[in-house]
Amino acid sequence: MEVMNRVVAIRHHIDEFPVESDFELKSEALIVSVKAGCDDIVVKNLYVSIDPYQINRMKSHSSSQKTSSFATSIKPAQPIDAYGVGEVLASGNADFKKGDLVAGLLHWAEYSIVKAQTSLLRQIDSMGLPLTNHLGILGFSGLTAYAGLFEVAKVKEGETVFVSAASGSVGSLAGQLAKLHGCYVVGSAGSDEKVGLLKEKLGFDEAFNYKQERDLTSTLERYFPDGIDVYFDNVGGEMLEAAVANLKAFGRVALCGVISEYTSSKKAAPKMLDLVYKRIKVEGFLAGDFLNVYSDFIAMVSQYLGSRKIESLEDVSIGVDTIPSAFIGLFKGDNIGKKIVKLAV
Amino acid sequence: MEVMNRVVAIRHHIDEFPVESDFELKSEALIVSVKAGCDDIVVKNLYVSIDPYQINRMKSHSSSQKTSSFATSIKPAQPIDAYGVGEVLASGNADFKKGDLVAGLLHWAEYSIVKAQTSLLRQIDSMGLPLTNHLGILGFSGLTAYAGLFEVAKVKEGETVFVSAASGSVGSLAGQLAKLHGCYVVGSAGSDEKVGLLKEKLGFDEAFNYKQERDLTSTLERYFPDGIDVYFDNVGGEMLEAAVANLKAFGRVALCGVISEYTSSKKAAPKMLDLVYKRIKVEGFLAGDFLNVYSDFIAMVSQYLGSRKIESLEDVSIGVDTIPSAFIGLFKGDNIGKKIVKLAV
Repeated sequence: MEVMNRVVAIRHHIDEFPVESDFELKSEALIVSVKAGCDDIVVKNLYVSIDPYQINRMKSHSSSQKTSSFATSIKPAQPIDAYGVGEVLASGNADFKKGDLVAGLLHWAEYSIVKAQTSLLRQIDSMGLPLTNHLGILGFSGLTAYAGLFEVAKVKEGETVFVSAASGSVGSLAGQLAKLHGCYVVGSAGSDEKVGLLKEKLGFDEAFNYKQERDLTSTLERYFPDGIDVYFDNVGGEMLEAAVANLKAFGRVALCGVISEYTSSKKAAPKMLDLVYKRIKVEGFLAGDFLNVYSDFIAMVSQYLGSRKIESLEDVSIGVDTIPSAFIGLFKGDNIGKKIVKLAV
Repeated sequence: MEVMNRVVAIRHHIDEFPVESDFELKSEALIVSVKAGCDDIVVKNLYVSIDPYQINRMKSHSSSQKTSSFATSIKPAQPIDAYGVGEVLASGNADFKKGDLVAGLLHWAEYSIVKAQTSLLRQIDSMGLPLTNHLGILGFSGLTAYAGLFEVAKVKEGETVFVSAASGSVGSLAGQLAKLHGCYVVGSAGSDEKVGLLKEKLGFDEAFNYKQERDLTSTLERYFPDGIDVYFDNVGGEMLEAAVANLKAFGRVALCGVISEYTSSKKAAPKMLDLVYKRIKVEGFLAGDFLNVYSDFIAMVSQYLGSRKIESLEDVSIGVDTIPSAFIGLFKGDNIGKKIVKLAV
């Protein structure tokens, strides 16, 4: 059987704020079968994840491309690998068979031909939860929140926690997990709607719209009169500077993303003097280094999801043609929660 | 007995680069005896330590003054407490007697009247080593080097280590200890004379004069073609930025001072994006938090000193009136090694 596969690619490297014309949608014929002796797996993609870090892979040059196997360069006109959930249509690999539900590195496309190992493909058990949960709260976004809080910042019951981009896929879980751990949790987000959601639906103690604050250092002082123990940082820039100014002695910053640096060369500048005198630790991390706690993470979060103690925030667009606008929207703060594109009905 | 005690004080808070006229030398009568029932200890100061962090205590406002008990504000016209070595002249405290050699928080003055506990006073055993060693290599400078390397950065044999301000009191020991631990060590300093000393006398693998380099990122790339594992940072600023750009994945920065921020509001700006993708840890620390390893530190360093495996770099001026110029010189890079003022012959 032959199908037409619609595939998103970049037309050229993207070094400025991304726009729709940076992308193209190509149609390619794809044969849904595997030759004897070949271990390819043909997957019909059901959902793909839309993540801000992809912008660093799209640049002509970024130090990130050299330093992490999770962030190799994306070449113009080539398929873009991205975490996704799909259904196996044909398989030359004995471990996978037609009809299997799988998660792993698929593509921003309707179909993918992958090798099991290079795409980290695995069968998934829906555990009675929506398939989209496997891309966000039970995927790398969730692991980032879990590892950042418990392995990097080593947050303790009763501590004060500030989460930026708190209505995003990582921040929304980090805040909820910190609350369930017995912390006082404040989140920042970019609209009053998001702020309302954090306080009313996700149980944050407080939340604020950073776009309506004139001096973030004073804002944080208001919400944390005795200081911050842990800052879960998704954005960098001025927010990082303000958070460091408000950290307590022995405060920790878990740094999992620096969206402010992704599309701007303006640099974050926390006062290093504060780091010394307050004995602060700032630690960058990637979820991929914490696969050793993956099963602990899945056990905790799936239990909380099952008992409805946490909410999975998801923001789903439909159709491969919506991928470029979904991606660009991440940098404008359009999404609420995990941004996902649904590819097949 | 009454003596005239010459005491250094600041005339006013110092918020700019310090100059001699910011200081005054006052003479005060002091009675060398202790009334019955009073636990004062009268000390003749022999040597006092001259440390850059004191500038943060002299400012009108500095976040450092609020966040560490080691850095409380210094008031104009008041004596300035500083680490020193002295001889007890009179004591109302049963644990100390006339003639004892002591170390602790004394003053930038010829005599001090102190309480044992608040000044952290302790008898010292010269261990056959010069008394000045107790202010530098066996004092807080030494503990800073030891704790930064082994407790904060957790340096391992065979790793690559970069030390800035490497001819200073902390850097010179950090570099030598890293070499003895089996590391490849490169230091930066501010003159060709200091660079020669690092390579020829202290055994650094390489050293460079940062004032003669145009692009510190390229310079470090030349000395560390495979990257830096540990950066022992005394200076912050552009050097920190260049070092972070050259750190390997899972690199560590032990941050014990940020001289570039002490006398300038220009901020250090390492790329936070590098911190994330390279999973770098930047940790500020103060030696005072590592008294739990003090005896291990003394055992290691006094043994190396005794067997002449390490050198103590000291830079001694003579006379209480030289304290202001000695202090100002720290920020101009005048000193080579630990800056000490000898008060009594």
